[in-house]
Amino acid sequence: MALGRDELRRLLKGGPLHELLGLELTEAEPGGVRLWAPYRDDLLADERRSYVHGGVLALLADVAGDFAFATLLGATVPTVDMRVDYLRGGRPGHDLIATATVVRRGRRLGVADAVVADDTDRELVVARCLYSLG
Amino acid sequence: MALGRDELRRLLKGGPLHELLGLELTEAEPGGVRLWAPYRDDLLADERRSYVHGGVLALLADVAGDFAFATLLGATVPTVDMRVDYLRGGRPGHDLIATATVVRRGRRLGVADAVVADDTDRELVVARCLYSLG
Amino acid sequence: MALGRDELRRLLKGGPLHELLGLELTEAEPGGVRLWAPYRDDLLADERRSYVHGGVLALLADVAGDFAFATLLGATVPTVDMRVDYLRGGRPGHDLIATATVVRRGRRLGVADAVVADDTDRELVVARCLYSLG
Amino acid sequence: MALGRDELRRLLKGGPLHELLGLELTEAEPGGVRLWAPYRDDLLADERRSYVHGGVLALLADVAGDFAFATLLGATVPTVDMRVDYLRGGRPGHDLIATATVVRRGRRLGVADAVVADDTDRELVVARCLYSLG
Repeated sequence: MALGRDELRRLLKGGPLHELLGLELTEAEPGGVRLWAPYRDDLLADERRSYVHGGVLALLADVAGDFAFATLLGATVPTVDMRVDYLRGGRPGHDLIATATVVRRGRRLGVADAVVADDTDRELVVARCLYSLG
Repeated sequence: MALGRDELRRLLKGGPLHELLGLELTEAEPGGVRLWAPYRDDLLADERRSYVHGGVLALLADVAGDFAFATLLGATVPTVDMRVDYLRGGRPGHDLIATATVVRRGRRLGVADAVVADDTDRELVVARCLYSLG
Repeated sequence: MALGRDELRRLLKGGPLHELLGLELTEAEPGGVRLWAPYRDDLLADERRSYVHGGVLALLADVAGDFAFATLLGATVPTVDMRVDYLRGGRPGHDLIATATVVRRGRRLGVADAVVADDTDRELVVARCLYSLG
Repeated sequence: MALGRDELRRLLKGGPLHELLGLELTEAEPGGVRLWAPYRDDLLADERRSYVHGGVLALLADVAGDFAFATLLGATVPTVDMRVDYLRGGRPGHDLIATATVVRRGRRLGVADAVVADDTDRELVVARCLYSLG
């Protein structure tokens, strides 16, 4: 059962951590989504406050991949494993945009590719995620 | 330059996101650390509040791997890539413990293995992380 | 120093295992290549001879990624790590085609994406590979 | 249904590529195996014949992980995905030893860790592999 944009938004907002991070669904079509995370100082990783925590970028990639499947399946699905490649550091002051696309939808398992960029289109992370489709 | 436990603690606490999550360094020896993250409801992933967000588990694994290298190098190091395998979901109400060990320390690159468990020793995540040693 | 197609072919053929497998370079442009591996019965994995060994598919992905960098750097480069996702089994009797593209070329590290398909364009494997650029 | 060592050996030898590479099962216990691959010049990667092809090392890791599950399940199982970390190059003239252990056996999916070393105990590759347990 496919979900419309409003239902996906409600699903995203229902997650306490998504709410804490202020995640917004900005685009959705069958098999792909785009999410937006507003910049906040407490996403920074280090004492010198010089870059965004890599864990936040990985989290955004995973959530985007999950919601790419939710557009097709009507629900989010458990992540089985994930590979994240960090291409560049995220700079303070910039919002983050995560885009994901379904690469393969098998009977039980599915693969999605995600990219996390900042609001100047600098790609920060690429990720490949495997989900259990139930 | 190796770091003692107090210096590692200060380094960990210096990261705004670590402070937000309340991370504590509970053990450290050359090439290995253990971190502790207190349970909070806003780490949950879903509307039904049934499990901890996988992104948090991945983040803890990455931070633990990073600090395993910090015990040897005197500073945290950039993550190049990471593979995370989700073994079980994290249940509400349980603190999280991340343990990491250096697997290989090359001249420029290093590999660490991390395990994230809950406070009943249920293993939730295993991760293998590659760091740039500079 | 970029390499032309003839030099890349010589480089590929110089590898004893490439020669054993009969690999051919069929396309090359800066940052991307396509390789071809002829089907042979002894690439099969199992007693019932029902599918091509996954290790062969992973190997082709890695070689293609490596040669995608060779088009830019003039030499092959060491693989640091690789993630391989097996999408479908390779059927007996079909030649294999591996295509790779450079995703990121950093100063010291580079990422390439590879796809291995059979000669009917069925995608069998996607891989993401990290190389040390020296 | 668990398999004894003789049945595992027959299963391994039944694979045409395993036979081509001369793989031998040297140890097996429930949840773990060790394989041995004799050195051959045509496993080398490069014109200068200076190191063993990384694809061979990845293949050995995958086969070992697969047979670690075969000790428990009575049959080999499809690889879903794999992460390979190359720690050191394999030197000419040395046999290869691949050891794998089951890390997690779920209902449908299982994770194995594998190490490939040479005959002087130099670790060349660590790999983490996900299998579909059917």
